[in-house]
Amino acid sequence: MTHTEKLVAIRSLMEQNHIDAYIIPSSDPHIGEYLPDRYKCIAWASGFTGSAGTLVITPKFAGLWTDSRYFVQAREQLAESGYELVKLKVQHAEEYADWLAANLPAEATVAFDGWLMPAASAAAVRKPLLAAGVDVLENVDLLTPLWRDRPPLPENPAYLLDEAFTGESTSAKLVRLRANLRKHHADAHVISSLDDVAWLLNMRGSDVVCNPVVLAFVLVTEEVTTLFINQAKLSQQDRLSLRKWGVETADYAQVGARLAELSGKTFLLDPRRTCGHIYNMLLPDVQEDINPTTHFKAVKNDVEILHIRDTMVKDGVALTRFFKWLEETVGKETISELSLADRLRQFRSEQDGFVGESFDTIAGYRAHGALPHYKATASSNTELRPEGLLLIDSGGQYRTGTTDITRVVSLGNVTGEERVDYTLVLKGMIEGSSVVFPQGTKGYQIDAITRKPLWDELRNYGHGTGHGVGFFLNVHEGPHTLNGAAVDVPIERGMVTSIEPGLYREGAYGIRIENLVLSVDHADTLFGSFMAFETLTLCYIDTQLVDRSLLESKHIVWLNNYHAMVYDRLAPHLDEQERQWLAKRTVAI
Amino acid sequence: MTHTEKLVAIRSLMEQNHIDAYIIPSSDPHIGEYLPDRYKCIAWASGFTGSAGTLVITPKFAGLWTDSRYFVQAREQLAESGYELVKLKVQHAEEYADWLAANLPAEATVAFDGWLMPAASAAAVRKPLLAAGVDVLENVDLLTPLWRDRPPLPENPAYLLDEAFTGESTSAKLVRLRANLRKHHADAHVISSLDDVAWLLNMRGSDVVCNPVVLAFVLVTEEVTTLFINQAKLSQQDRLSLRKWGVETADYAQVGARLAELSGKTFLLDPRRTCGHIYNMLLPDVQEDINPTTHFKAVKNDVEILHIRDTMVKDGVALTRFFKWLEETVGKETISELSLADRLRQFRSEQDGFVGESFDTIAGYRAHGALPHYKATASSNTELRPEGLLLIDSGGQYRTGTTDITRVVSLGNVTGEERVDYTLVLKGMIEGSSVVFPQGTKGYQIDAITRKPLWDELRNYGHGTGHGVGFFLNVHEGPHTLNGAAVDVPIERGMVTSIEPGLYREGAYGIRIENLVLSVDHADTLFGSFMAFETLTLCYIDTQLVDRSLLESKHIVWLNNYHAMVYDRLAPHLDEQERQWLAKRTVAI
Repeated sequence: MTHTEKLVAIRSLMEQNHIDAYIIPSSDPHIGEYLPDRYKCIAWASGFTGSAGTLVITPKFAGLWTDSRYFVQAREQLAESGYELVKLKVQHAEEYADWLAANLPAEATVAFDGWLMPAASAAAVRKPLLAAGVDVLENVDLLTPLWRDRPPLPENPAYLLDEAFTGESTSAKLVRLRANLRKHHADAHVISSLDDVAWLLNMRGSDVVCNPVVLAFVLVTEEVTTLFINQAKLSQQDRLSLRKWGVETADYAQVGARLAELSGKTFLLDPRRTCGHIYNMLLPDVQEDINPTTHFKAVKNDVEILHIRDTMVKDGVALTRFFKWLEETVGKETISELSLADRLRQFRSEQDGFVGESFDTIAGYRAHGALPHYKATASSNTELRPEGLLLIDSGGQYRTGTTDITRVVSLGNVTGEERVDYTLVLKGMIEGSSVVFPQGTKGYQIDAITRKPLWDELRNYGHGTGHGVGFFLNVHEGPHTLNGAAVDVPIERGMVTSIEPGLYREGAYGIRIENLVLSVDHADTLFGSFMAFETLTLCYIDTQLVDRSLLESKHIVWLNNYHAMVYDRLAPHLDEQERQWLAKRTVAI
Repeated sequence: MTHTEKLVAIRSLMEQNHIDAYIIPSSDPHIGEYLPDRYKCIAWASGFTGSAGTLVITPKFAGLWTDSRYFVQAREQLAESGYELVKLKVQHAEEYADWLAANLPAEATVAFDGWLMPAASAAAVRKPLLAAGVDVLENVDLLTPLWRDRPPLPENPAYLLDEAFTGESTSAKLVRLRANLRKHHADAHVISSLDDVAWLLNMRGSDVVCNPVVLAFVLVTEEVTTLFINQAKLSQQDRLSLRKWGVETADYAQVGARLAELSGKTFLLDPRRTCGHIYNMLLPDVQEDINPTTHFKAVKNDVEILHIRDTMVKDGVALTRFFKWLEETVGKETISELSLADRLRQFRSEQDGFVGESFDTIAGYRAHGALPHYKATASSNTELRPEGLLLIDSGGQYRTGTTDITRVVSLGNVTGEERVDYTLVLKGMIEGSSVVFPQGTKGYQIDAITRKPLWDELRNYGHGTGHGVGFFLNVHEGPHTLNGAAVDVPIERGMVTSIEPGLYREGAYGIRIENLVLSVDHADTLFGSFMAFETLTLCYIDTQLVDRSLLESKHIVWLNNYHAMVYDRLAPHLDEQERQWLAKRTVAI
């Protein structure tokens, strides 16, 4: 079926079911950032493959609501699909619900599949619609009857990690979790988010691209922990280990039926990490809060921190070899955005414990660098020449940690404007990395301090300053974040966060410089306790692009100290030629 | 009755009514910051006179939950009252509800008077109690039957302001408000907050100390606006004017009965600016949002801005005369904290349009300056000597605007530490005042940038960086604020805000430097629109306390430009001696 034929078929089902508008969200029952093929409903229906968007279909109109990152892509992919692009003002906002409230008659009926919508979004959709007198049906799946050969759920194996890697046993994590449930006056808890499940059970897999997670739900009550999973994924031994820790396994598909049997219990549920279907089923006995495991997981323990520091050495060695190769090869052999990403993965894969990439490498040459979420395709793929700026944002999954790093390097002929922009971004990165802040400081405060050097020169960037990073888990994790939004989560000791200011000149180039940092205690004073960041990422920063006159002496000191550390930590793992090359790249300015 | 006798009487009423715990909040039906005498329930019951706190009474325990500003005062005032001090971890948090949930048996009954509790607080109290199986009664007034000679409601006159002062007619404001209600799909709206009422109707009065407001509610529907007020407060002419604008008057006491008649309408209500009683009465047809007038009021129009700039000249002239008098008199005549506050009020009262103080002057000499909310009393009152630091935080209500300013002056013999602390606070104030920021920036981002110079030196202050200020209205107004809390309100063009970093050394001295600023457009760029602050306050900053070596050249430039502006704007209104004195105080450093 073409996309227009599918649209006709959906509309015909809508008519049969007396539905005036059907919403297809971009989510799955686990509220994942990356979706298994089975849940790529928007791509199936419309052809649009961006990671964020919502389709809304009425008898006369069909639209994709998405944000500015995807305007160009959406316009191309939606051509002749029957869907129009509707531009979101605020990323991830449910603006289509207001549109529906304004455009549907009272007593109209709107429907969607509650398994595919976070409970918080379902509530945000419901509010304006009910206020406008519109009915909302939250359990309507119109796609399954039409979607032939819909991909099955992934069946990759799962495995347990040893405590020597995780630093905390599943039993101990369950004790902490149950104590937290009691504090919430809750006697049951459902975890749908896959990284929370993986962290709690010290379990990993490969069901989702770039995220080493396993498709599963966990139910925790005072008495028992139940893992809902395709049981064939687990080895006999791992199943025995789980049982020993009080974790029973049950079939993945049983989760709905089993939860329905638990009426009367008070559930703690995270409305942003639980789908509307499960949430509604457990109402009204629901305490709302963020999943306790999301908080626990964000604070790395000492074992994890030791592993992460080691992982940074491995990643730094791979990056050093890659950038040396790039510098020595560009202009001599053919290198494209796609081929350099392959080469980078290859350097990483030579490191012990490498499992895969933590996200698809963003390699943006010149104007492509100005698209913060650019991913080279066969048609966009550009060949490098010995001139201009190249932005590379990449990361690895290792058994001992997850990395995420962005560097911009000059391939030659730098302009004055490029140099100024690069230096201001670097200044912001250094301000963010070297800030000393009182206990209780929130991410949005670090965000402002990082942006200040750019604001001072009337420049800014449209994305966040940083995000939490998992331990051999998702490269994006909460609850903390560094951006301007009112996310009321303090930066705590042991959190790992990216700091990645940028600057983008459309049609010309993009700059972003990103390190991972660890929050550490700094000083106890009369005015309270202060914290600071320890920079974890070990990779040189291209100083050929730095305009020294724009930096204050404290920034120069920071940069030179950083480069001395990078050299000291990486040199023992490099050969003589590599060492010499790195010594030049890390020389003090 | 003594406080212990009152406690016995309350407990006896509790027993008769089968109530296991009674909560007495610090609020009134208008959720005011300052309470009319009639609503000073905590002072009547316990003797505690601080502005924030909650009494909780059970048969065996009686406690006052309050925050660190009031620990010393509470311990003194509660001695022999029968109440114990319970220290709040988070200011204004309903921590007593968790205590009740943990300490009461299931099926116990907790009660309070819903007229005296914001709806949002009532919800926060209800949540843990209902989760713990405790019953909550929200309409129980145990005080009125016991409180003999309870003060009546204030009966001061009200008056309307001319459009030449307010810049916008009540009719125009009502049109904006009704358009906003339609956007919310609401057909009715109740305003309980007195500054919102005053702004909407261009009406002022003197029912609350320091706040020029009138005790009243407003009900707005599509068809009619009703002002619930003691009608004797209004002149015949003002009543006719209101009627001309479509505003009917009704008796203040009728508000409950009249609202009860409106069932079936959908109300827009602000749960933080409406008491629980009114809120519950209008359920379930309630749309929750901040009062639209709170947003409207925060953005000053061009007429208000012109008046405010003039008002700053008047206030600056009064302050110049005051500081000159202080400098020339200290050590020669007897001056105390209390007498200098009187003298300051006198200088302000000589200015045209002065109505009164915008809050009680905080004059803290030496160690008293370290108490951010210090108010001198007969027993604490200290005489000034020609040495040490004096902190003065004061403000005036003028028909043409509201002022709020803090200065610290040296009376002699400054120490090195005082100089460093003062210079760092000044540096923070300058950073906050001179920041250039993208449209959409929130107060918590400006807060972090203002604190940064102090954080860099491991110093900090425990209060917010700034607050909104009304136009001849409350000196504290929302919705915007500069502090670390996740208040998701952008700084908009036309907002007036204080910037007031500080530093407090217990037992030694306190420093705070405060100006008011206006948000203005700054530049449109490739990276979006940028805004900046125009400093409104006109009063010299004591440069005898500045350690120039701690400032960067940009700070010195800002300070010298500011002083040049202060001199230029005030000099025409001063006599020759005053001009000479001010010229010395504003000389460039």
